[in-house]
Amino acid sequence: MSLASLKLNPRADARIRAGHMWIYSNEVDTKVTPLKAFESGQQVQVHAADGRSMGVAIVSPGSLICARIISRSDKQLLNRKLLKQRLQSALALREQHYDDASYRLCFGDSDGLPGLVVDRFSETVVIQISNPAMEALRQDIIEVLDAMLMPSTIVLKNDGKMRPVEGLDVYVEVVKGELNDGFASFIENGVKFEAPVLEGQKTGWFYDHRDSRARLANYVEGKRVLDVFSYIGGWGIQAAAFGASEVVCLDSSEFALECVARNAVLNGLDERVFTIQADAFTGLKALADQKEKFDVVVLDPPALIARRKDIKVGEKAYQKLNQLALRLVEVGGTLVTASCSMHLDRDRLVNIVQSGARQVDRTVQVIEQGHQAIDHPIHPAIAETEYIKCLFTRVLKSW
Amino acid sequence: MSLASLKLNPRADARIRAGHMWIYSNEVDTKVTPLKAFESGQQVQVHAADGRSMGVAIVSPGSLICARIISRSDKQLLNRKLLKQRLQSALALREQHYDDASYRLCFGDSDGLPGLVVDRFSETVVIQISNPAMEALRQDIIEVLDAMLMPSTIVLKNDGKMRPVEGLDVYVEVVKGELNDGFASFIENGVKFEAPVLEGQKTGWFYDHRDSRARLANYVEGKRVLDVFSYIGGWGIQAAAFGASEVVCLDSSEFALECVARNAVLNGLDERVFTIQADAFTGLKALADQKEKFDVVVLDPPALIARRKDIKVGEKAYQKLNQLALRLVEVGGTLVTASCSMHLDRDRLVNIVQSGARQVDRTVQVIEQGHQAIDHPIHPAIAETEYIKCLFTRVLKSW
Repeated sequence: MSLASLKLNPRADARIRAGHMWIYSNEVDTKVTPLKAFESGQQVQVHAADGRSMGVAIVSPGSLICARIISRSDKQLLNRKLLKQRLQSALALREQHYDDASYRLCFGDSDGLPGLVVDRFSETVVIQISNPAMEALRQDIIEVLDAMLMPSTIVLKNDGKMRPVEGLDVYVEVVKGELNDGFASFIENGVKFEAPVLEGQKTGWFYDHRDSRARLANYVEGKRVLDVFSYIGGWGIQAAAFGASEVVCLDSSEFALECVARNAVLNGLDERVFTIQADAFTGLKALADQKEKFDVVVLDPPALIARRKDIKVGEKAYQKLNQLALRLVEVGGTLVTASCSMHLDRDRLVNIVQSGARQVDRTVQVIEQGHQAIDHPIHPAIAETEYIKCLFTRVLKSW
Repeated sequence: MSLASLKLNPRADARIRAGHMWIYSNEVDTKVTPLKAFESGQQVQVHAADGRSMGVAIVSPGSLICARIISRSDKQLLNRKLLKQRLQSALALREQHYDDASYRLCFGDSDGLPGLVVDRFSETVVIQISNPAMEALRQDIIEVLDAMLMPSTIVLKNDGKMRPVEGLDVYVEVVKGELNDGFASFIENGVKFEAPVLEGQKTGWFYDHRDSRARLANYVEGKRVLDVFSYIGGWGIQAAAFGASEVVCLDSSEFALECVARNAVLNGLDERVFTIQADAFTGLKALADQKEKFDVVVLDPPALIARRKDIKVGEKAYQKLNQLALRLVEVGGTLVTASCSMHLDRDRLVNIVQSGARQVDRTVQVIEQGHQAIDHPIHPAIAETEYIKCLFTRVLKSW
C-alpha cells in the first residue's frame, strides 16, 4: 500500500527530527502537496524538502496543526494493530502505578495516539475522539478496549469543542451496557466517587490532579478546609476522607454541588462536607467579609487562560483569586493553588502567589509542587502536553 | 537601640517590596551610606531612596549580596529570640511531614535565617554557618538547638566555600558529644543510613532528593538498578531496600563507595548492592560497550553548572550523560534524571532528555517530576532558593 506524500518546506523538518509530532499548515510545501488535496483523516507519508522520509502522519487539512506524526517508520500506519499496541503500553504504565482501575488510560499525543482520550472509571470506560483519523477507527477503539478491559459500560463522549473544527459531528452515545442515571462509580486515592459522565464537564472527572490530591492527606487532618471551584468535590471530599474536621466546597454550579453532596453521602462524610453556591470571586470576598478562616484553602480554577492572547486578563484573574484565597488562610495554614492553563508558566504562578502574599502581608513558603498525574504523561518534545501546575504553600506571618 | 542606616538607590526598593530579601551592592546609595563604613555582620536599618524604612538587614560589605533583610519591621533584630522563633517554625514544618527525626531543619533564607543550614540526623545535629551575623550568634544557635532537639551530638561543619569570602575562618568542630568514627546514623524513607559528617560532602548527606527517592519504591521492585554519581548510596541503597533485585552504584570516589558498602551492610542488602569506581562518563561508556542493560538508571550528578558562565559547557555535560544513561535503559524501563544546578532550567532538562532519546532512537514519556523535598522550602520571591529538578521518564521503543 502506497501512501500519498506530504512535503515539508525547507528547514521545517528540524522540529520533527527533534521529536515533535505536529506539523503546522505553514510548514507544508503546498505548491507541491496542496493540503486541500487530502481528505480529513487521511494517512500520508511525510517528506522533508530534501526528500527524506519523516514517517507516517494523519492529516487534518483545515486545521492549524494540519498533520500529526503517527510513526517515524515508513510502514507503520495507524490501524487496529498499532492502536492495540499503544493502548497496551499505556495500560502497562497505569497498572504499574495505580491499584484502582480508575485513571486516564490514554492521553492522546503523549501515549502516541493523537486525538484519543480514554478515561477508565472502574467498570465504565469513557472515550473522547477529536480527529477524523481516530473517528475512522471508532469501532476498532471500542472493540480493542472492550477486549482489553472487559468493562460493563462504554461511553463515547464525543462532544469536544474541536470536533466541529475537524468536521466531526457532536454526540454522546452509550455503546455498551448502561450508566446508572448518567453516573460512573470509581475510586481515586482510596476514596469513592461517582462522576456525572453524561452531564458533567469533559469525561465527567479530572484525574489530572490525582497525585497532588493524594498529598492532601498530610495537610488536612483535623483541619478546616475550603475547596474553591470544587466541581463535584475532587479535592474537598478527599480532604474530608483524609480527616478534615470540616470542608466547604464552593462552586457556581448547582449541579456540581449536588454531585458534591452525593459523593459526601457515598463516603459517609455528609456531616462534615458543606457547600456554597457562588461565583468564586464573590464567594471568597463574602467569606473574607465574614472574617472566616480556613487551615487549608484549595484553589483549582478552570483554565483562565484559554489562548495566548488571554494571558494578561487571565493572569489578573489568577492574581485576584490567589490574593482573596490567601486572605482566608490561617497563619501556619496551607494554600494549595493550581492552574491548568498551559499558557501560565509555573514560575509565573509562583510570582502570583508571592505577590498575593505581600498584598495581604504574609510570608509564604512553597513546600511542594505538583504536576499532572502519572496517567497524564508529558511528551518531552511537545510542550503543549504539559499543562497542570500545583503549589502547596505554607502561609506565615510576614517576616 | 538605634541602628545605622543603609540607603538604597532610587527604584532599588521595588524588588524588596515585592518580597525579595537580598540587596546587591550596586543597589546601595554608597555616597550617602558607603558599604565600607559597615562592619561585617552588622545589623542596619534599610531605607529606600524616599526615606521609607524597608526593615532590618544584616550586612556583608564585601559581597555582591551586600545585605540580607531579616525583618520588614523596624524593630525586629536578628537575635536569640528571633532565631528561636524561626527555628521553631522550621521544626513545626518538618515535624508535620516527616516521622523520622532526620531532615534539613533549617534551609537558610527559605526559613528566614540567611546563612544558617542545619541538618538533623536523628541524634546528631550538623550546623553550617556562612555569614558573619550568624557566626556572631554561634553560641545562641548551639544552645537553642540543644534545648529544642536535645541531641547527643552537635557538629559545626564550618568549612563552606563562602566563609573565606565573608572573612570567616574555616573549621569543623564537634561542640557536643561525639561522632562514631565521624559518622551519624539516621533514617530516610524508612531506610537506615550512616553519613560521613566529618569527611563527606557538605553536611555529609543530601536530603534534598528525599521525596523523589521515596517515589523510587514504585519503580524498582524486582528490577536491576544503576545509580550513577551514587555518592554514599542515597538512591541505590533505597532502591535495594525497596526491592530491587540488583543495584550497581557508580562513583569516582573510593571513600563514597566504601560508605555505600557500609550502608548496604547496615540494611542487610550487601548481597544485592555492588559498586563500580569510575568517572561517570567513562563508567557509563564501559557499561554500554559491555552491552549491559538496567531496568532503572538514576542519574543524579553534582552541580555541573556552578555559575551562569558555565551554562554552555555544563549543558553539554548533562547532554552527554543523559544520552549515555539512556543507552543503558531497557525498553519499558525508567531513567530518573536529576539536576541540582540552579542555572539549569527544568524545561532545559526536559529538552536534554528528549534530545538524548532521539540520539539513541527511543521515545520517552515524562511521568513524574520531583522537586527539592519539603525540608528545603522555596522562598517564592527568591528564585535562587530553588535548585533541584528530577524527572522520572519512561523509555520506550521509538514511535
